[in-house]
Amino acid sequence: MLNTTDPRTGAVTPTGLDATAPEQADTIVRAAQAAFADVAGRDRAWRAGLLHALADALEADRAGLVAVADRETGLGAARLDGEVSRSAFQFRLFAEAVREGGYLEVAIDHAGQTALGPAPELRRMLIPIGPVAVFGSSNFPFAFSVAGGDTASALAGGNAVVLKAHSSHLETSARSFAVLSEAAGAYGAPDGLLGIVYGTAAGAALVAHPLVRAVGFTGSLHGGQALMDIIAGRDEPIPFYGELSSLNPLVITPGAAAARATEIADGLYGSFTLGSGQFCTKPGVAFVPAGADGDALVARLVERATDAAASVLLNERIATSFDDIRARLVAAGAVDVLARGTEGAGTDGGAGFTAAPTVLGVEATALTAEIAEEAFGPLIVVARYADDGEILAALDAVPDSLTATVHSEPAEVEAVTGLVAALAPRVGRIVFDGYPTGVRVSWAQHHGGPWPATNSQHTSVGVSAIRRFLRPLAYQDAPEAVLPAELRDGYRGIPRRVDGRLQLD
Amino acid sequence: MLNTTDPRTGAVTPTGLDATAPEQADTIVRAAQAAFADVAGRDRAWRAGLLHALADALEADRAGLVAVADRETGLGAARLDGEVSRSAFQFRLFAEAVREGGYLEVAIDHAGQTALGPAPELRRMLIPIGPVAVFGSSNFPFAFSVAGGDTASALAGGNAVVLKAHSSHLETSARSFAVLSEAAGAYGAPDGLLGIVYGTAAGAALVAHPLVRAVGFTGSLHGGQALMDIIAGRDEPIPFYGELSSLNPLVITPGAAAARATEIADGLYGSFTLGSGQFCTKPGVAFVPAGADGDALVARLVERATDAAASVLLNERIATSFDDIRARLVAAGAVDVLARGTEGAGTDGGAGFTAAPTVLGVEATALTAEIAEEAFGPLIVVARYADDGEILAALDAVPDSLTATVHSEPAEVEAVTGLVAALAPRVGRIVFDGYPTGVRVSWAQHHGGPWPATNSQHTSVGVSAIRRFLRPLAYQDAPEAVLPAELRDGYRGIPRRVDGRLQLD
Repeated sequence: MLNTTDPRTGAVTPTGLDATAPEQADTIVRAAQAAFADVAGRDRAWRAGLLHALADALEADRAGLVAVADRETGLGAARLDGEVSRSAFQFRLFAEAVREGGYLEVAIDHAGQTALGPAPELRRMLIPIGPVAVFGSSNFPFAFSVAGGDTASALAGGNAVVLKAHSSHLETSARSFAVLSEAAGAYGAPDGLLGIVYGTAAGAALVAHPLVRAVGFTGSLHGGQALMDIIAGRDEPIPFYGELSSLNPLVITPGAAAARATEIADGLYGSFTLGSGQFCTKPGVAFVPAGADGDALVARLVERATDAAASVLLNERIATSFDDIRARLVAAGAVDVLARGTEGAGTDGGAGFTAAPTVLGVEATALTAEIAEEAFGPLIVVARYADDGEILAALDAVPDSLTATVHSEPAEVEAVTGLVAALAPRVGRIVFDGYPTGVRVSWAQHHGGPWPATNSQHTSVGVSAIRRFLRPLAYQDAPEAVLPAELRDGYRGIPRRVDGRLQLD
Repeated sequence: MLNTTDPRTGAVTPTGLDATAPEQADTIVRAAQAAFADVAGRDRAWRAGLLHALADALEADRAGLVAVADRETGLGAARLDGEVSRSAFQFRLFAEAVREGGYLEVAIDHAGQTALGPAPELRRMLIPIGPVAVFGSSNFPFAFSVAGGDTASALAGGNAVVLKAHSSHLETSARSFAVLSEAAGAYGAPDGLLGIVYGTAAGAALVAHPLVRAVGFTGSLHGGQALMDIIAGRDEPIPFYGELSSLNPLVITPGAAAARATEIADGLYGSFTLGSGQFCTKPGVAFVPAGADGDALVARLVERATDAAASVLLNERIATSFDDIRARLVAAGAVDVLARGTEGAGTDGGAGFTAAPTVLGVEATALTAEIAEEAFGPLIVVARYADDGEILAALDAVPDSLTATVHSEPAEVEAVTGLVAALAPRVGRIVFDGYPTGVRVSWAQHHGGPWPATNSQHTSVGVSAIRRFLRPLAYQDAPEAVLPAELRDGYRGIPRRVDGRLQLD
């Protein structure tokens, strides 16, 4: 039987859940394949309704979900309550996208004469791919886990989903799954459209399974690489969408430091300690100008961190890893410990897994890849720079990331343009005068970035995440009766590209 | 020095070209990176103009290109002339797409209150990724080689391209490259935007090079897997877009056989022998109904093949492989040799590499994966079936493919719907009452399919092929001055999604 651990106290209790045996995983994937085939005949309105039913069900069990997740993650009721809202919002946003239909990328080229002679008629749209395996992350037990964006986007596209429950919140996973699968059943979805497995071996079996057509993963670089190795051993390779590791450099210009030192220090403190620093978008290195304004900003940041108590981390592995990496960074030459909050018991006074906010300092000219390592937890490296050239040189030591952030004043636009040109090739999102933590769920969002942030050219947050779980299918000179409704000439109400010209409806 | 071989005669002559040394390949990739950075500041109109200049230059050297390609490939002047036109057309179509701007997938979400509280402004578009390595195919020395669709789509997206010349048409590659790079230079493109390497080792060096951001490949499953292995060994994985292997099943219904036996037999003969059967979309297995109508169709197909002389294949490797696979298929139990044209000298009477059109027969119930192996060359397996159930069962032995084809009569729509439901998950394009060879270049085309046809969910022909070489970048709360023009509020003339609503301009 599998256990769960309260990270506030370290107390271990049995969950009542067993690790899924490989043959059970096979049964679950086969049921997902059967359900996938079953729902292929249902229209977009049906699927949008399903997504709404899942959103409603999550909110209906809000209190229960938050309670179990709080016990398993220590993230606190307020944050988890917001995360349930966010998960429900994601399902509803994908429902809106499914109804709108632009995601189908419908294109119709009528037959006719072309510069290359007579050409046949072609009608193309995106179609779902089959069962998708989704590995949730530890740090978002709802929004990037069983009820998260990968699940929502895969279902929105018309796929079946088999989840791998995260070992760090098994009961939250089980309860989320029960809520979603019961709501799906009540709505009329076939059994098996959603499945779940528990345990590392069952997760590996999912990724290796011939019927699984893609993998969505949010987690560590190490974990992602293990799954990529399994995929490399498959007879048929499948896409792996991994959201893996990110340092998220943040730059404060001299103008911003002069104008807003305290405000930025407070904002930065809030961002790097949010959720105990366990955000993939946590700013891990901040470039602060040398001189009095930068000194004032750093002093305020140090004051905030020094005054703080340790906060709870998600699990023992993360706590151990955080301690190890922090020790490595501190031991690296050229690094000063500028602040370290009160270590010891967690916020609730228990004997669980905690870490104190930590601010390290380094000269930008001394920043190395060794120092620019992601420490998952409340730690930030402040790199002091004399001029933009030092930032640009130091960026070569910083791994490509999900985000970069620039704080500046309007008069500095020329310098900022240079910074943006240097940052753009390295990240997936550039934030101005704000903080990278807090990822808006919307149409224009992009949550991704060059390796090692992700291994794909797609987003895992926002509407276009659906594209990961679709593929094109073209019909050439097809009789109208065999065409999907959206590809017929008379169909209205979705954007389509007809003979090269985009039409709204 | 590298040699070239005339496949009609087997005569080997020196090319004057040397294999590219690994350090030269590095220099070429670095030049591509520098050129990529240089063109990042040029607008879409500039890039569209570049694509037109390349198209014009290809057509201006049409006679010279065709002559050298004919000598190296034996494909014949008429076909090669058409292929130059097709390549030029591709460049121009991508120019049109670049001007139209929809491929940028611009999305803008303004700041405001949402169901989850206040949200920042986000503006996202697709941006180029960097130098792309392109491996051309043997069988299309223009349209899928140096001057082919991967080159056109990668350049259209704003990337630099480094080509690996195919060993089977080195001089065609060199001449195509000279034409394109001179035209690019004359237009004002920086040196290095296009590069080329020769030889297997240099090709491997390209795929392993840290600055190369993606690989486009059209070729054999074996060759593709070798490149995927190199990618697996990189520190940073990059996307590999392989178009690899395809059997392309074709189904003739009883109604179609009754109504059009001779017409379909003639069409099928033309399709499976087109370009000596060296098309990735060649129909490799045709399901023909049992009974008199099917007998008549097969008799006509056999008559056409029996009367035919051998035709030239592209190179010795393909000729040897064709002979080996044909021998294996013939040796497989349950297979009958229904027709085999006159073997020996090629169409031009030389001592080159040739193959005679070959028709093999099998009962659909006896079709195995062993028999359903792609033979690259003029060979088709005719599988006779008693009912649709036999087709559906036999399809499990057929590898997933780029295309499937159905010939039927209007009264059979119900049966055809069932066939289409079975074929759709297995292919990327379904052709009705036509032939899969001949791939229209247009907005709605899809040239791709489930493994082993390709390893991606993208197309390698048609406008959306550009998506392979782009990635999203989002700007959050950015000052207008640092935004790309297409992301500013006042910009007009391209489709954009603003606050979730698609707008045409």
